[in-house]
Amino acid sequence: MTHDKGCCGSVCQCFFEYATPKILVIRSKKVGTVNRVIQAVIIAYVIGYVCILKRGYQDTDSVISSVTTKVKGIALTNTSDLGLRVWDVADYVIPPQEESSFFVLTNLIITPNQTQSRCPEEIVVRMTLSVVQVPSLNSNCSSDSDCTPGLKDVRGNGVQTGKCVNYSDSVKTCEVLAWCPLEVDRDPPNPPMLADAENFTALIKNNIRYPKFNFNKRNILPHINKTYLTHCIFNATTDPDCPIFSLKYIVSTAQEDFQTMAVHGGVMGIQIRWDCDLDMPANWCKPRYTFRRLDNKDPENNVAPGYNFRFAKYYKTANDVEIRTLIKGFGIRFDVMVFGKAGKFSIVPMLLNIGAGLALLGLVTIVCDWVVLTFMKKRHQYKAEKFSYVDDFGLLSEAAE
Amino acid sequence: MTHDKGCCGSVCQCFFEYATPKILVIRSKKVGTVNRVIQAVIIAYVIGYVCILKRGYQDTDSVISSVTTKVKGIALTNTSDLGLRVWDVADYVIPPQEESSFFVLTNLIITPNQTQSRCPEEIVVRMTLSVVQVPSLNSNCSSDSDCTPGLKDVRGNGVQTGKCVNYSDSVKTCEVLAWCPLEVDRDPPNPPMLADAENFTALIKNNIRYPKFNFNKRNILPHINKTYLTHCIFNATTDPDCPIFSLKYIVSTAQEDFQTMAVHGGVMGIQIRWDCDLDMPANWCKPRYTFRRLDNKDPENNVAPGYNFRFAKYYKTANDVEIRTLIKGFGIRFDVMVFGKAGKFSIVPMLLNIGAGLALLGLVTIVCDWVVLTFMKKRHQYKAEKFSYVDDFGLLSEAAE
Amino acid sequence: MTHDKGCCGSVCQCFFEYATPKILVIRSKKVGTVNRVIQAVIIAYVIGYVCILKRGYQDTDSVISSVTTKVKGIALTNTSDLGLRVWDVADYVIPPQEESSFFVLTNLIITPNQTQSRCPEEIVVRMTLSVVQVPSLNSNCSSDSDCTPGLKDVRGNGVQTGKCVNYSDSVKTCEVLAWCPLEVDRDPPNPPMLADAENFTALIKNNIRYPKFNFNKRNILPHINKTYLTHCIFNATTDPDCPIFSLKYIVSTAQEDFQTMAVHGGVMGIQIRWDCDLDMPANWCKPRYTFRRLDNKDPENNVAPGYNFRFAKYYKTANDVEIRTLIKGFGIRFDVMVFGKAGKFSIVPMLLNIGAGLALLGLVTIVCDWVVLTFMKKRHQYKAEKFSYVDDFGLLSEAAE
Repeated sequence: MTHDKGCCGSVCQCFFEYATPKILVIRSKKVGTVNRVIQAVIIAYVIGYVCILKRGYQDTDSVISSVTTKVKGIALTNTSDLGLRVWDVADYVIPPQEESSFFVLTNLIITPNQTQSRCPEEIVVRMTLSVVQVPSLNSNCSSDSDCTPGLKDVRGNGVQTGKCVNYSDSVKTCEVLAWCPLEVDRDPPNPPMLADAENFTALIKNNIRYPKFNFNKRNILPHINKTYLTHCIFNATTDPDCPIFSLKYIVSTAQEDFQTMAVHGGVMGIQIRWDCDLDMPANWCKPRYTFRRLDNKDPENNVAPGYNFRFAKYYKTANDVEIRTLIKGFGIRFDVMVFGKAGKFSIVPMLLNIGAGLALLGLVTIVCDWVVLTFMKKRHQYKAEKFSYVDDFGLLSEAAE
Repeated sequence: MTHDKGCCGSVCQCFFEYATPKILVIRSKKVGTVNRVIQAVIIAYVIGYVCILKRGYQDTDSVISSVTTKVKGIALTNTSDLGLRVWDVADYVIPPQEESSFFVLTNLIITPNQTQSRCPEEIVVRMTLSVVQVPSLNSNCSSDSDCTPGLKDVRGNGVQTGKCVNYSDSVKTCEVLAWCPLEVDRDPPNPPMLADAENFTALIKNNIRYPKFNFNKRNILPHINKTYLTHCIFNATTDPDCPIFSLKYIVSTAQEDFQTMAVHGGVMGIQIRWDCDLDMPANWCKPRYTFRRLDNKDPENNVAPGYNFRFAKYYKTANDVEIRTLIKGFGIRFDVMVFGKAGKFSIVPMLLNIGAGLALLGLVTIVCDWVVLTFMKKRHQYKAEKFSYVDDFGLLSEAAE
Repeated sequence: MTHDKGCCGSVCQCFFEYATPKILVIRSKKVGTVNRVIQAVIIAYVIGYVCILKRGYQDTDSVISSVTTKVKGIALTNTSDLGLRVWDVADYVIPPQEESSFFVLTNLIITPNQTQSRCPEEIVVRMTLSVVQVPSLNSNCSSDSDCTPGLKDVRGNGVQTGKCVNYSDSVKTCEVLAWCPLEVDRDPPNPPMLADAENFTALIKNNIRYPKFNFNKRNILPHINKTYLTHCIFNATTDPDCPIFSLKYIVSTAQEDFQTMAVHGGVMGIQIRWDCDLDMPANWCKPRYTFRRLDNKDPENNVAPGYNFRFAKYYKTANDVEIRTLIKGFGIRFDVMVFGKAGKFSIVPMLLNIGAGLALLGLVTIVCDWVVLTFMKKRHQYKAEKFSYVDDFGLLSEAAE
């Protein structure tokens, strides 16, 4: 084997060379078994778990979503303030449209006919429903000197004018400039005023997109026809594809009681999971609906429990004075949360996983060599066969050889 | 080669050892070619596809976005109900501001001067525009016994009082407690009332952030000056950087007709894709706008087609009675959907891909060994050169040797 | 070593074989050191950087979030138009509830008592606050022929009737059908009307979920009790867990001046980062709050700076004419942006990284072989020991041998 030829021939020869490691084959039940078992485990893991179960051969993408909702239902209330009153969707959905959530009014405290004027401040004895007694604004006074003109306490209802006026026959409080009469800080009615809200239904339309795979889908599936849609109500077992939900069903599926929740309001999550294997037929890709309460009902570790907000309807009287009806609205906000991952075959993650799997097979040699060279009886023979030595030590060479 | 020295010397010697596999070089055109071709394919794949095309050397992050919008334009309507009327942005954008979408009213059915009172229920002959005739609420009656006091049908307009009253000279229906007069369930005007809406423009400001790379950018690019911004209108080919969009352009780019869509409303997606290679200059990172219709216009597999919602304006009469104007507003909701991935050089994914690529090179040996030991004429010679055998079989040893 | 046995025996024998590469051990300080150093670097990288620092053994998931907010505070304004007026939450938060943002009105231009009628168009001398003078709508006219009936200019306030009427004693402009009197296009008041808004507080409740790990958490942490919550105000150093924020603190932390920003409005991002290592105790997973201005205050590269929108309150007069109060509201929109990644131990990414690490160790052999066969004095000896050759060349064989 001499290599004395021209440059071209040398390169050619080099190109056509194939270098393969020399192998020592050890025929041994013990080592052979260890070898095959570890090999089998790694191959089973790579093929079975990574490729099949975890679909390691797929590239993934996250969902982009658009949601529209439509609530239906009528509620009847009968109170001393308002008399007999019917509430329809324009009354109880506030604001009338939102991006991916909707709010249904279930309870309210109304303060009608407020005008910008002066009135005695409320005797505030508590902060929003706190069980623990916290230092609250003391608006009681005995003379004008107890009141600070211009004081805007965050817990108060207005700006103090500096006067001390009669709140009742026996009590005096500081006068405030505010929307008067002031809202009374009382507990919301129980049972809730719009108890009928549990019978309302919500139609949820959801359009998703996986941009990487240019895949769009709607939650109203192609096999569903119009007749079915006008009648169906979602039920996880009997009607899992119907996009019309009973509010009571949503709340009760999340282990909550609608009437209890309706008193102070709350936040419900309507979770739509789109986990799609795009290597499979497109109609296997279906939304899964789950429901979860998002706010905290634990009274200890909480401030402002439930969900409420204040809004007003503004009117003008005949003599051009602006009046408003202040409404503290309690209700359930339904947040539609869409998430999911789509996977589709892609060469990069597949080869990445196969490459890593092949590399893991290198572990077999490490483990088995250790077994062979440590535990086998004939280990010195194996060592002599497996290893050759060349020495190139300066200092150690004499000692070593 | 004897190893009988002190412990320290042995460790030293071990430390300075370098173990390299013994190699059998086969000089063969056939195997050499197979070897080099497979090597070339794998290296080309790792460098060309994974590293350059897929940018496997980059760490990625998903976009966080904030959107504000501003619509401009004026529409004129002329109807028998309202007379000649001008609509400006405060009239047709409902609610006045939203997080990342905006709604433009294009058509409406107005029911003015509703009060809480009693009136005969509508004769409902159809469910929201359904082509298929579905069983609908039968509110016809001949005597009071046909009406159920307190019945709140989800398809009705109010709560039945139990009386049967004249709807017209010939027809009697159950009386309901509701906002009367009832809304007439009729088709929306065609052509749409605010047909002028197609000339409205929307300014979309989008601020994005890639938190992992601490990279912020706006869709109003730095090279764009104010003069340009006050005049430009987005056009995918001539003005791809202008953030001001004509509503008609958005709809027509998505292959839809504005006037047709305006009748029943709909949902349009304004998709902003921010795909940024942060190893490149920052001004290469630009938004790409695409438009897509998000709702389903297929009438067969649909319920409540288009997009509409009901809202009301509340008034008080001189004698303190609350009246409202109910508006069933049809319109186009524009959802601004921002997505994208940013990539930036990172050592971990690069070495991960290189590691997996090196491991894949191990495949070459497997394939070539199989070729050598199966197809080559001299395969027995190669086998003898490549493999050495040591036996350690208990049972099989006699038979084997 | 003969293999002439039955098929079963052959398979058995093959099963119990263990193939291990033959190794040439070179004892050399130089190569040994190179070998060990590269090995150490790779192992340190895989274990130290990938596994410990980057937590490569973890599977990750992105956050899903729900946000509710509640603003508190009272503002006092004193203007010639409105007189002394108190503003509470129902007045200045518009719309009253949103999904994950809230808008606080800080400044406004009011145009009261507009009706649908005819009035002379404004002399528009500028486009929204532009420094650069841009060609603006010329509504001046000398006779009816200068005005186009039906013209709806996007910059105008209404639809031209075609008449030329007196705007003032000296100037005539085209008459428009519009909500009259027209809004005056003037700069917003400075200082802002609701300067008190800086003292408002916002309670932000945030509920997150990592769906892959079925992990939920709230930003009101379990160790926080009610008494603390009723008193605390967020401060990055002293109260980093308090979910109640002063608006002034948010703005000033983002290096902005509240009063300056309040004049023209703006958009603030409240960024909540949830980076959770779910292999650690759950209470280590805490939100981190940061604040950032999202809109562009640079006047050069900007159109419609700040943040404002128009909305109207609708009234009816005694003789049933609809009037409205148009409000151009300037204010700060606070966008709550929730993001983050959770990691949890998972076998797939760990073995992927270990596999890639092992494969990288293959680099050691490549580098060291190159050193050994190129730079060492005894390189010919090593070459002879390491490589064996078998030739199978047709054409080249004579020349080569």
